[in-house]
Amino acid sequence: MDIFRFQHVSYGYTKDKPILRDISFSICEGRKTAIVGANGAGKSTVLFHLNGLYAQQQGDIFFHEQKLDKRVRKELYKHVGIVFQDPDDQLISLTVSDDIAFGPVQMDVTDDEVQERVAKYSKLVGIEHLLAENPSELSYGQKKHVTVAGVLAMETDVFILDEPMAFLDPLGKERMASILQLLQEQGKTVIVTTHDMQFVAEWAEDVIVIHQGQCLGLFQARDLFQRHDLMKQANLTLPPIVELMTAVWKGNKDEMPIRVEEAKKWLASKI
Amino acid sequence: MDIFRFQHVSYGYTKDKPILRDISFSICEGRKTAIVGANGAGKSTVLFHLNGLYAQQQGDIFFHEQKLDKRVRKELYKHVGIVFQDPDDQLISLTVSDDIAFGPVQMDVTDDEVQERVAKYSKLVGIEHLLAENPSELSYGQKKHVTVAGVLAMETDVFILDEPMAFLDPLGKERMASILQLLQEQGKTVIVTTHDMQFVAEWAEDVIVIHQGQCLGLFQARDLFQRHDLMKQANLTLPPIVELMTAVWKGNKDEMPIRVEEAKKWLASKI
Repeated sequence: MDIFRFQHVSYGYTKDKPILRDISFSICEGRKTAIVGANGAGKSTVLFHLNGLYAQQQGDIFFHEQKLDKRVRKELYKHVGIVFQDPDDQLISLTVSDDIAFGPVQMDVTDDEVQERVAKYSKLVGIEHLLAENPSELSYGQKKHVTVAGVLAMETDVFILDEPMAFLDPLGKERMASILQLLQEQGKTVIVTTHDMQFVAEWAEDVIVIHQGQCLGLFQARDLFQRHDLMKQANLTLPPIVELMTAVWKGNKDEMPIRVEEAKKWLASKI
Repeated sequence: MDIFRFQHVSYGYTKDKPILRDISFSICEGRKTAIVGANGAGKSTVLFHLNGLYAQQQGDIFFHEQKLDKRVRKELYKHVGIVFQDPDDQLISLTVSDDIAFGPVQMDVTDDEVQERVAKYSKLVGIEHLLAENPSELSYGQKKHVTVAGVLAMETDVFILDEPMAFLDPLGKERMASILQLLQEQGKTVIVTTHDMQFVAEWAEDVIVIHQGQCLGLFQARDLFQRHDLMKQANLTLPPIVELMTAVWKGNKDEMPIRVEEAKKWLASKI
């Protein structure tokens, strides 16, 4: 079922430079959706509409078939959590603990429950030893995990992450991937923007391709990587494993491995 | 020949939290060197010492066997260009053209030569259509390319780039990779920090591993990916192609493919 539906949405800071141009697409509930496209294509602008931070200038957006008017938009943050690209845009408190608590407090959760959530989600993302620290003194990766814990603590049904992998070190990327996996197993809807095409191959179920403020379509990751012309049009490139497999695979294209584990299994049977 | 040599260098903002701890290593002239390690390991701090932005608090740094004292450090920017992680930290002019010209002007290059370089390097990085724009109004990828053009225009012997690939879209990454390749073909020394381990496999000749402010060694990329214990210690993970090959390769470890093209060639001969 659709959780979000964009119908002919337009948005721009100035009239002659529109960011979103009559864009239409839907996002399915409970699925792992990646939004991909070139720098400046409009991906972050789409995300900011999903949690009501931006209001569309033209067209309609539906959340659970409810039209996003001013009233609905104001309450949207209770259902849709967002992790910004730059953690410095999101960290506002003097301690990590207060920062994680900030969201639940806004949502009128009881004090005891707030403390429980701070403990639970700081542990889940592996920052329970940093609760007394000042966020501004942490490393980039640590800051990123604090903002993720803060959004998790709001226990929304939808989680949005803008470039969650950028600047994270390899182990940080692995931890982030396992958090995203866990969220989806809990039935949450998870939406990310990313430039990491191997991560798209490994993680995403649905992939929405944005190009110059418009939607080129929603694809299964596996199908997208067969559409070389469309990928080129959107300035996307094949991830390493897919590039390798595209060169050597002679079977049915629908069954071509795109993930490391799939490729391992297939090669083990061939070599 | 060594172009940089760190001897027992220490550095920290506060005494109880050192960033670099008695670190020693060398960087070879004319080679493509990647510095890798976890978030907060000290990679950026190393870079800032290489171009004289920071002065070591203890130990010695040598540039072409010349000890970096205050006098040498002050002139270092003429030899060592640096592209920061965040282009907003680097862009200061009201037009792209002025921003690219800024470095050469500081170096007392003649006006005609400055204009030639602006034209040449804006074209090389593919932003010649943006010369009259205000950098603050560009997308992240465009800003990044403006800062790269500005550093190229200084025509230094050494190019340092802090996380050049982060936040770039796939096509931007390809363009950046080809610029780095070109620089090295011109005999320049190119030093980057990166979390993109597949890029390390594809591009780097030497890899310096930094862990908690110390150097765990300098390796050929091929050798590093065989040292699984050391990689784990430094919070690094294998890039996708190397992970795949590690699982299926049964030959001499020194000959295991680590790049997409190598893997293609080998698989084509097997399947």
